[in-house]
Amino acid sequence: MQSIRSDAELMIKNIIADNMPRQAVEVALKEHEFSGRIYMVAIGKAAWTMAKTASDFLGDRLEKGIVVTKYDHSQGALPRIDIYEAGHPVSDENTISATHECVKLAKGLTDQDELLFLVSGGGSALFEKPLDGLTLEDFKDVTTQLLASGADIVEMNMVRKRFSSVKAGRFAQLAAPAQVFAVILSDVLGDRLDSIASGPAVPDKSSVEDAQKVVEKYNLELTEQQRKYMLVETPKEIDNVEIVITGSVRTLCESAAKTAKELGYTPFVLTTLMNCEAAEAGRLLSTIAADTQNGRNSFSKPCAIITGGETVVTLKGKGKGGRNQELALAAAKGIAELDQTLVFSLGSDGTDGPTDAAGGITDGKTVANLKKQGIDIDKILADNDAYHALKAIDGLIITGPTGTNVNDVTVILCR
Amino acid sequence: MQSIRSDAELMIKNIIADNMPRQAVEVALKEHEFSGRIYMVAIGKAAWTMAKTASDFLGDRLEKGIVVTKYDHSQGALPRIDIYEAGHPVSDENTISATHECVKLAKGLTDQDELLFLVSGGGSALFEKPLDGLTLEDFKDVTTQLLASGADIVEMNMVRKRFSSVKAGRFAQLAAPAQVFAVILSDVLGDRLDSIASGPAVPDKSSVEDAQKVVEKYNLELTEQQRKYMLVETPKEIDNVEIVITGSVRTLCESAAKTAKELGYTPFVLTTLMNCEAAEAGRLLSTIAADTQNGRNSFSKPCAIITGGETVVTLKGKGKGGRNQELALAAAKGIAELDQTLVFSLGSDGTDGPTDAAGGITDGKTVANLKKQGIDIDKILADNDAYHALKAIDGLIITGPTGTNVNDVTVILCR
Repeated sequence: MQSIRSDAELMIKNIIADNMPRQAVEVALKEHEFSGRIYMVAIGKAAWTMAKTASDFLGDRLEKGIVVTKYDHSQGALPRIDIYEAGHPVSDENTISATHECVKLAKGLTDQDELLFLVSGGGSALFEKPLDGLTLEDFKDVTTQLLASGADIVEMNMVRKRFSSVKAGRFAQLAAPAQVFAVILSDVLGDRLDSIASGPAVPDKSSVEDAQKVVEKYNLELTEQQRKYMLVETPKEIDNVEIVITGSVRTLCESAAKTAKELGYTPFVLTTLMNCEAAEAGRLLSTIAADTQNGRNSFSKPCAIITGGETVVTLKGKGKGGRNQELALAAAKGIAELDQTLVFSLGSDGTDGPTDAAGGITDGKTVANLKKQGIDIDKILADNDAYHALKAIDGLIITGPTGTNVNDVTVILCR
Repeated sequence: MQSIRSDAELMIKNIIADNMPRQAVEVALKEHEFSGRIYMVAIGKAAWTMAKTASDFLGDRLEKGIVVTKYDHSQGALPRIDIYEAGHPVSDENTISATHECVKLAKGLTDQDELLFLVSGGGSALFEKPLDGLTLEDFKDVTTQLLASGADIVEMNMVRKRFSSVKAGRFAQLAAPAQVFAVILSDVLGDRLDSIASGPAVPDKSSVEDAQKVVEKYNLELTEQQRKYMLVETPKEIDNVEIVITGSVRTLCESAAKTAKELGYTPFVLTTLMNCEAAEAGRLLSTIAADTQNGRNSFSKPCAIITGGETVVTLKGKGKGGRNQELALAAAKGIAELDQTLVFSLGSDGTDGPTDAAGGITDGKTVANLKKQGIDIDKILADNDAYHALKAIDGLIITGPTGTNVNDVTVILCR
């Protein structure tokens, strides 16, 4: 029998491999029946890889494509594909000119054409073009006012998307009568389609009235032009779009479950929406692990208890770490001295916080191993310094940047 | 079909009823075969009720008993039972004189006798007698030194119990050759028998050498007499004791599971050791609820997801609340707008924090209901003011003091 650590390492390898943009896009393309002439628009941080995959898959069938990605995220020329790079997380003039090219392409399509629309994280900032008569400044203006007023992100987007020519379903509308096949790599917890890249191909759920209420609630000062566009309704029905979410935190959890099962652990996914404090998540999950070992809960060994999401770290100290490292280290206390018990937490992008690690991995020996090296786990946690502690005991997960971002997965293994 | 709220209320009623000291003790006594003359010692905050139950159950078979409980916790005279009240959480002279009576009783027993030993929370402080030549001052002295040195609770107890004539298994030893039947109502997460009331009837796991290491590690300054007792070994094997944990957070969770099942929910206990920040536990659990409704995790509706333990609240604000109220309110955000989804969190003692509530109950309408009343849930949470928010929307669980304390239980209902 392999060690539990080897099992964890194989799981990590497979989880990353399964969720690379190439694998994810290939799965979606293979299951789709393309018809007519195929055009492509790819937006987001993974746009280049997604476009490359489509290019390889479609070959000569692809008429023309456009990639809009972040600066330094293109990896070279692709046949019949124009590649643009632009600002992220803040849109700039290149965002607008690149998006303008996408709009031109979409507008030129006929009912003999099909648009493959590849969307990945960062699409909200990288894909933007104000409606005629408005500029990026108008976006900044209302954003600043809304931020100062204490509006939440839902309210903020309700107003902002009304200034956009591509958000809130408008891009899909521009492409009609062509069919749009949207393939989405989601970095938004809960996979709310109208949230991912602000939903260029999804009907908008909010109305002119909803947006007006936000304007009134926060006493926004709008120009005449801004007021005019606040009254234009967004698409409420879109009938030319098929959407496939090919990668997301759910597929990340499914990959973890799949390999766990192959290794003989019964997988159990608790949530794909975990968004609380990293250390507290670690503490709670470690008690689930401990009670699984003690036979005091409803899980039976061997099992893999899986949570997906993206936790947060409220910084108290000045150490080095990331949310996944902090979660794994905090969990170490609750599983101390337990045999055959392991916790790992992994950021799918391979870069957890400002570190070169993808996450952390701890087990029943972690606290004792730290102690041997004179490292006080409580002090480390208070200083948010998980990186150095984990490094000292071979508890870092190192993958390098992976080229994907479908949030994080945390796994408890008990056997 | 009853409303989900009615289901929750029935669960709360049954959970409390099942876990009252009377019910718990009766179950244990019924399953035990007493032999010989029966004596009794009852210690802890629930000692009076436990003793009353034993007295009712045993009738004339009880030769003599002693109750040591907290001031104002006796509810009247009991036949053939001496009742003492003493200081809690700080031991006082009444602690020592009452414990002295227990020691006298135990020492007088023969192999024709059986000692029923009833233990409940608070027993650590309420049951104490220093070894001959030491006083309560010696306990205070090392406690003060250890606290100042940063020693943890395990290290602290390792030293302190060596000064005690009743802790660390010594009380059971005094009762030999009589058999001891210990019935325990546990308020210690994980039911570590050597931790509950500092284990008067449980072999001590730490040795003289372990305790010496702590003395050296923290450079404790000990008197000659203290040093002498540091060298006396504690019992390592005790063969005259049978222990039953008749009530604990596990039975609390089991009660929740039982009623849930009767109401048609599949019960699932995640942990009985939950001890993280209350609000973060609420956040994490609410995402489990949301994904259960969305069909994105491994749970199937209808289900009851149960956690037991005792969370903590790190105070940031000046509001009024308790850990269970804060947990339930924090969970409300994650289940907002979800139909047929409810979270309640309940302190088994009926007094959650410095309030007259036992806990909180929230559902998919809570956030909207608070909004209608002009209450901002984020501000309330930042101010630790869950009590007033929950009170405004009928979200408090009110049971009154229950007379038991087996920690807390939190339940998610999804149907």
